[in-house]
Amino acid sequence: MRIGILTSGGDCPGLNAVIRGAVLKGITVHGLEFAGFRDGWRGVVEGDVVDLPRTSVRGISKQGGTILGTSRTNPFGGNGGAEAIRSQLERRGIDGIIAIGGEGTLAAAHRLSGAGLKIVGVPKTVDNDLDATDYTFGFDTAVQIATEAIDRLRTTGESHHRVMVAEVMGRHAGWIALHAGMAAGAHAILIPEQQVSLDQVTEWVTDAHKRGRAPLVVVAEGFIPEGQDAPHSALGLDAFGRPRLGGIAEQLAPELEARTGFETRATVLGHIQRGGVPSAFDRVLATRLGMAAADSVAAGSWGTMVSLRGTDVVHVDFQRALGRLKTVPQHRYDEALTLFG
Amino acid sequence: MRIGILTSGGDCPGLNAVIRGAVLKGITVHGLEFAGFRDGWRGVVEGDVVDLPRTSVRGISKQGGTILGTSRTNPFGGNGGAEAIRSQLERRGIDGIIAIGGEGTLAAAHRLSGAGLKIVGVPKTVDNDLDATDYTFGFDTAVQIATEAIDRLRTTGESHHRVMVAEVMGRHAGWIALHAGMAAGAHAILIPEQQVSLDQVTEWVTDAHKRGRAPLVVVAEGFIPEGQDAPHSALGLDAFGRPRLGGIAEQLAPELEARTGFETRATVLGHIQRGGVPSAFDRVLATRLGMAAADSVAAGSWGTMVSLRGTDVVHVDFQRALGRLKTVPQHRYDEALTLFG
Amino acid sequence: MRIGILTSGGDCPGLNAVIRGAVLKGITVHGLEFAGFRDGWRGVVEGDVVDLPRTSVRGISKQGGTILGTSRTNPFGGNGGAEAIRSQLERRGIDGIIAIGGEGTLAAAHRLSGAGLKIVGVPKTVDNDLDATDYTFGFDTAVQIATEAIDRLRTTGESHHRVMVAEVMGRHAGWIALHAGMAAGAHAILIPEQQVSLDQVTEWVTDAHKRGRAPLVVVAEGFIPEGQDAPHSALGLDAFGRPRLGGIAEQLAPELEARTGFETRATVLGHIQRGGVPSAFDRVLATRLGMAAADSVAAGSWGTMVSLRGTDVVHVDFQRALGRLKTVPQHRYDEALTLFG
Amino acid sequence: MRIGILTSGGDCPGLNAVIRGAVLKGITVHGLEFAGFRDGWRGVVEGDVVDLPRTSVRGISKQGGTILGTSRTNPFGGNGGAEAIRSQLERRGIDGIIAIGGEGTLAAAHRLSGAGLKIVGVPKTVDNDLDATDYTFGFDTAVQIATEAIDRLRTTGESHHRVMVAEVMGRHAGWIALHAGMAAGAHAILIPEQQVSLDQVTEWVTDAHKRGRAPLVVVAEGFIPEGQDAPHSALGLDAFGRPRLGGIAEQLAPELEARTGFETRATVLGHIQRGGVPSAFDRVLATRLGMAAADSVAAGSWGTMVSLRGTDVVHVDFQRALGRLKTVPQHRYDEALTLFG
Repeated sequence: MRIGILTSGGDCPGLNAVIRGAVLKGITVHGLEFAGFRDGWRGVVEGDVVDLPRTSVRGISKQGGTILGTSRTNPFGGNGGAEAIRSQLERRGIDGIIAIGGEGTLAAAHRLSGAGLKIVGVPKTVDNDLDATDYTFGFDTAVQIATEAIDRLRTTGESHHRVMVAEVMGRHAGWIALHAGMAAGAHAILIPEQQVSLDQVTEWVTDAHKRGRAPLVVVAEGFIPEGQDAPHSALGLDAFGRPRLGGIAEQLAPELEARTGFETRATVLGHIQRGGVPSAFDRVLATRLGMAAADSVAAGSWGTMVSLRGTDVVHVDFQRALGRLKTVPQHRYDEALTLFG
Repeated sequence: MRIGILTSGGDCPGLNAVIRGAVLKGITVHGLEFAGFRDGWRGVVEGDVVDLPRTSVRGISKQGGTILGTSRTNPFGGNGGAEAIRSQLERRGIDGIIAIGGEGTLAAAHRLSGAGLKIVGVPKTVDNDLDATDYTFGFDTAVQIATEAIDRLRTTGESHHRVMVAEVMGRHAGWIALHAGMAAGAHAILIPEQQVSLDQVTEWVTDAHKRGRAPLVVVAEGFIPEGQDAPHSALGLDAFGRPRLGGIAEQLAPELEARTGFETRATVLGHIQRGGVPSAFDRVLATRLGMAAADSVAAGSWGTMVSLRGTDVVHVDFQRALGRLKTVPQHRYDEALTLFG
Repeated sequence: MRIGILTSGGDCPGLNAVIRGAVLKGITVHGLEFAGFRDGWRGVVEGDVVDLPRTSVRGISKQGGTILGTSRTNPFGGNGGAEAIRSQLERRGIDGIIAIGGEGTLAAAHRLSGAGLKIVGVPKTVDNDLDATDYTFGFDTAVQIATEAIDRLRTTGESHHRVMVAEVMGRHAGWIALHAGMAAGAHAILIPEQQVSLDQVTEWVTDAHKRGRAPLVVVAEGFIPEGQDAPHSALGLDAFGRPRLGGIAEQLAPELEARTGFETRATVLGHIQRGGVPSAFDRVLATRLGMAAADSVAAGSWGTMVSLRGTDVVHVDFQRALGRLKTVPQHRYDEALTLFG
Repeated sequence: MRIGILTSGGDCPGLNAVIRGAVLKGITVHGLEFAGFRDGWRGVVEGDVVDLPRTSVRGISKQGGTILGTSRTNPFGGNGGAEAIRSQLERRGIDGIIAIGGEGTLAAAHRLSGAGLKIVGVPKTVDNDLDATDYTFGFDTAVQIATEAIDRLRTTGESHHRVMVAEVMGRHAGWIALHAGMAAGAHAILIPEQQVSLDQVTEWVTDAHKRGRAPLVVVAEGFIPEGQDAPHSALGLDAFGRPRLGGIAEQLAPELEARTGFETRATVLGHIQRGGVPSAFDRVLATRLGMAAADSVAAGSWGTMVSLRGTDVVHVDFQRALGRLKTVPQHRYDEALTLFG
């Protein structure tokens, strides 16, 4: 049996370890053969395929990014759709697909599976916001990078008696902010799930300052202050005449400075959180998920995805992962509040 | 209520985060007061106690080691025992104890608890070999440090076409070797739970070499080759005339070199795996465990310890943690074998 | 003799190592006593002084920031001036000053020295743009942090076939961009010293793309594209109604995207480059400079600053450091051009 | 003109950056062609050669080790010698050699140059002990790795009130111990250049302990205590019956423990110091040296090597690098002594 692997959506530390895990176990234990679709669903729709022999995955588990490339191509757009994909797979001699991607990819896989295509999934989201798994690979690396960066910001805050505002990833869920904020000892953690008022943030900052600390605010990109109705709006035109968007940190900082009277600086960590060498935790998790995906293929468990439950890797239906965002529950936010509230 | 905290046994990344979590939540939410026993049970038995106000735990969650000091003092030895400890606690005005330590400390805490003393526990083992919890803090940091070091060894192996043998911690359980070995892409992982023969190791090394790789062997300090009856025996006298023990890696390397004919080098990672800045994962886990221990105290749940189950922190009886070593199960070793066997 | 130490201006990795080096050598070899001015010249002008015994500098060489605090206070503003400072020093029993700071601080020190005050200087600039010394401490750490971050950005660029634009520090001199760009293998390095046209940048990016690379642009914050007359102008108002400035990277990215047709992303590394644990190189350099400053004091070499020449620490007149910015010379830029031009 | 590159002797962070620098500048500026000899002089003697087009050096400057492989083959042994090499070069169409290696390689290059072969050199020694250059690439990375490891050991020492002994590289010169020891704040730095007595070490350790510190000893592998006549002698037989050598740290630790009465632990950092991702400093230095070597070739400056002087890369005769070990001068050791003596 010849299986095609694809990575779709934003890159994420651990993608290559998933590929390697699937290929090594698939070849040595299950006697499978592997090919790679280039740039996610684009490669599926266009039949852009490369062979993935054992040698092609050598030493890649510690490499960031994805050796297959990725894109945001929709498999049902343009020349896509279940029938087009089926005929491409036939033409390329590919019997089944391992799709590594986020909610969009898993939804597409679910739909293609419903149309009779043989697909298994591996969930991927740096933000850790998929309900069907305890953790997604890449999240640990992102939290570690953010924490190290915030540790650095902290010494600057303390030397200058400044408020430091650090913006981390997390569009719909605040897991990275919660974990990096707890790890770095933040005095305020602001996440999309909790519409905190600027008055409250100001109070937290002022309280920390009263205790002699240089206040540290960790904010997820998707945080919306209470009373606003959108994450953040356009910031006018840039020097080249284009409209532009600023991060929430860049908007909070001057606002907090005005309210508290303390010098305040913003840093948007941005893309450095999602690239580069994965943490050991993510390499192990991703490798195990990849191996389990090969097992799913060998067992013919089409229409399922692999998932972490406690310390076990299990197989769950696609449906389990869809439509339910895993947000930070109230008790976890309350727990963090204890440390700064 | 005034609670004394102690850290006992080998140091471990995250100890200070536990202390900080317990103190912050205990003071701000439960209205507790805290003191610290210096150097583990020694401070309890001798009444060596310092106050732990909120300011004393500032910024310590990212510090390695323990601000309280540690020792291997047995609370039942010398001037110790339940009655002596009870009277010391009374004299110092301490109503209960949070004991952070490994199996020995938790067993002592269990015994003292049976004698009517108020104790809650926080499990600690870098080796991750306690059955009552999914992960112990410190383990993630140790795996990360070991993996980074082995990544470095690997480039030397490849440049020189050498076999590299890396020895990591793990006296009775091979969790660090399993995870660091999987993360680093080892060609052999040797753990105490699996008495692999030298013939088998030689075969793995030779096979990797045939595939054009520089073979990488990751071995836990407690590994015993099949046919030997002790981890490793004395290596004669050193230049100062003292008997000395060498690591298993230092014994395997020349043996493998002789059997394979490939130049082989050993590195014993040793103490660097257990000191220094904890990973973000460990800071979060340790902070949560510390907060939960303060909750145990406030709830009067004496005789219990805190534990991680999936993503939840729960409270379990001391007994759950005792007498059962959490070793690497066969299916996890088989999983790893897939990658190199 | 009792010497006051101050740190002034932006924080910089290595400040604490300078303080420790001066205090340890001053006390143990020269029999000096030390005090610290809090928050730079503010502490001098206001007489805000703390004792600095040997124990106060324990273990601080690896800490980021400055234990003394810093500010941008002008010693000649407000209640300052040579006479006011002289009387503050007398009142606090301080005989001389070690001033650690950038060009502004060294100029002030020069002027105070001319007025008869006893001052020695230690040059400090993360940007490495002081002419009187081969390297300034902090620069190496900043380059290392920037390089690690850019290594991470790179894998994202490659996976998505994107152009990545990374903005690093360097207002007037492009040393950080030059070094981090060379270390990370950039396809364009843009620095204040070289007014490169957007056409040229577009060509470099397009050429790299033609060779199959994901183009990487490293730009110093002070870079001005040819034909513009200011680093970058205001970007309109933010969501809170305040005017705001964007980084040059955030302006270049959409411009390059429009010109090349390749998806382009910007990351502004910002404050993470100047905080946190200093590199070993910076710790050694800063420690040596601190020790040499104590030697200057003991030798009565007032009006001088310490400086690195090759591998030697030497003493030079303040004047040497003033008025001459150390910019990237043409041959060094040409050298880098070889790698991407 | 077609130039062959070789890397010889122990691997060293930065080797690949040298290769990349030489190839890129050689091809794009000087119109040279490149080939690589595999495994150092072995590839020269045996004519084991691969092409090195521009694509072969893509992204390698951040990779540890050497893409060409290395060995300790003597070019004058076996089938080697100037005439044999000359005819191999002719047969492979190679007009000149860039030899990257330590003193042995540079001496061989000098001798081959004397025999009329066209060779330029790039000095390589992790130990930084070559007299002809301010710094060698790889040294900065080794110091950084050692310092980070020792920072970790330190927290263990402090928690357990132990003496920690860390052994770093440095067979004939103590540069790594000097720099890592200064950076990490060691209480004793022991180097081959200084035959310190065990009484003296004991005094330093005891003094640090009296000041409340956990004593930290950093020792170079080549240190010989006063009164001994060899670095360290055989430690008997191991469990497999083979004679073995222990590191100096493993011998010092029990000796210090016996003399001071303080628990003492040794860690030998070993091979982790020389592998893996080079620091930004080393990548820049190595890249510049590689580019300068290509310039030497283009200028026909055979018989020279490249070298760092201050911030400049210069060209010097082979002879300058030979026969003179760059050891730690007395004033640099005295400087360090200030911090712990």
